[in-house]
Amino acid sequence: MAWRYALMIDPAASDDTRTDFDSTFSEVDPSAPALTVGELSTQRGDGIFESIGVVDGHAQEVEAHLQRLAHSAEICELPAPHLGQWREAVRRAEAASGAGESVIKLILSRGVEHGPTPTAWVTVAPAADFTEARTSGIRVAVLDRGYSIDLPGRAPWLLLGAKTLSYAVNMAAIREAKRRGADDAVFVSSDGFVLEAPTASLVIRRGDTFVTPAPNGGILHGTTQLSLFEHLADRGFATAYETLPVSALYEADAAWLLSSVRLAAPITAVDDRPLAVDADLTASFNAYLLSPRD
Amino acid sequence: MAWRYALMIDPAASDDTRTDFDSTFSEVDPSAPALTVGELSTQRGDGIFESIGVVDGHAQEVEAHLQRLAHSAEICELPAPHLGQWREAVRRAEAASGAGESVIKLILSRGVEHGPTPTAWVTVAPAADFTEARTSGIRVAVLDRGYSIDLPGRAPWLLLGAKTLSYAVNMAAIREAKRRGADDAVFVSSDGFVLEAPTASLVIRRGDTFVTPAPNGGILHGTTQLSLFEHLADRGFATAYETLPVSALYEADAAWLLSSVRLAAPITAVDDRPLAVDADLTASFNAYLLSPRD
Repeated sequence: MAWRYALMIDPAASDDTRTDFDSTFSEVDPSAPALTVGELSTQRGDGIFESIGVVDGHAQEVEAHLQRLAHSAEICELPAPHLGQWREAVRRAEAASGAGESVIKLILSRGVEHGPTPTAWVTVAPAADFTEARTSGIRVAVLDRGYSIDLPGRAPWLLLGAKTLSYAVNMAAIREAKRRGADDAVFVSSDGFVLEAPTASLVIRRGDTFVTPAPNGGILHGTTQLSLFEHLADRGFATAYETLPVSALYEADAAWLLSSVRLAAPITAVDDRPLAVDADLTASFNAYLLSPRD
Repeated sequence: MAWRYALMIDPAASDDTRTDFDSTFSEVDPSAPALTVGELSTQRGDGIFESIGVVDGHAQEVEAHLQRLAHSAEICELPAPHLGQWREAVRRAEAASGAGESVIKLILSRGVEHGPTPTAWVTVAPAADFTEARTSGIRVAVLDRGYSIDLPGRAPWLLLGAKTLSYAVNMAAIREAKRRGADDAVFVSSDGFVLEAPTASLVIRRGDTFVTPAPNGGILHGTTQLSLFEHLADRGFATAYETLPVSALYEADAAWLLSSVRLAAPITAVDDRPLAVDADLTASFNAYLLSPRD
């Protein structure tokens, strides 16, 4: 994969009134060294990120991603991001993204150890080809996330609602799913409620209602799921947030994993139980998700 | 803090028979960019590390740290490290460490996204002055780690026994402890058993027996705790690994957090309950821990 663009950002304070950020941006060669060994992102996964899908030069749902970045910063006690500065950085990345599908990644790190400020950067890379996952679907393995459904609210230091750079467990869960013959994982709480996938949100269909696990402080609020729910409402479907036992996934009429870059991937099997795939409905979801969205 | 030394490593395969690693090492300026934005350590905390204490140019317990690095690599499905190569890298770092106390950090990252191999490096930095923590002691806050004591064995994808770069939660727990007026945290399982501190092991004294939580796959086996237990045995004390309810910490005759760089920090209070400190015994622990150990 060739990275297309990288922009280092000197983060402005959130109360900074400036609107010209030229002096805070520095374009770098994405294949050349840009970070020091003292970076806390690299030493401790201590920072936050967002991945924004880009289709033919249009970055999708930028505001929702920026809001979530700010939310993650709050949970992690990082300085509040200056959203105007990030918006402008995304605009520059968007301009460098080219045709087809790509991904803009925003990273806000706590900085260099003992250093004065956070470090931050934005990259653009071409997206992988997800045609197969979007059309033929994916198999998922159910994996225990290890905590009970009511934990996140009483243990905020576990950072469960933040999109942190500490993603080793998410990556290990996907490897475990592949070892089990699946393509992706769905996490369940230790008391048996479905949560989310390591890098995606879950949506199930039950009759004419589309349901996603209720935000409980331990689930990232998926920007793509939010966008799809708006689309479903426009089409006259009911949508709901519910605390869902894992049986609801096994017994769903259909289910999808939703994420910013892969978009809607229909689930063909949960562990060894097949799920029906509605090819036309899924295609309509992805057509919508590939259209320009703000 | 001035970094003293940084060495980039091109990781050799564990079955490589070479003994000359010159061509795999590259000394870099620790304050200059050395890592690319595509680094998976920085994007996902996807890698492992070790921190080795150094006293007057002698790196402590190097073999125990190398063995744990290999153990973490196995859990995280990273290529097995060539221990001869790492040993030589530590030797070079040791030579650059200078007088007084410092810390050698070993980092093995999964590499650059879509890249062919892991990336790896070693740094040396002066240690902070921990005299106060070692003599006056530290207050700890008990924090829920969120999982039950029997979880790690059945959910290896949570990587609970590996020293991964995904340390954002460990850092957040220390911030929460400070917010509560303490200096550090002690994690307990959701079912009430003491585990470890975010960056240290716990040892309690009960009469003439010194006890640390039994390894359960979810606790790092502390190199400093292991070394102290050898020392205690030499002095005729009993040592034990036990599954300890949190009440055992509250009711201990004394307790310490043990780590490679801060060494033995006596606990003066657990939440609001004071603990007695044996200043002479603690001083003898730190004198031992500061002596050259292999």
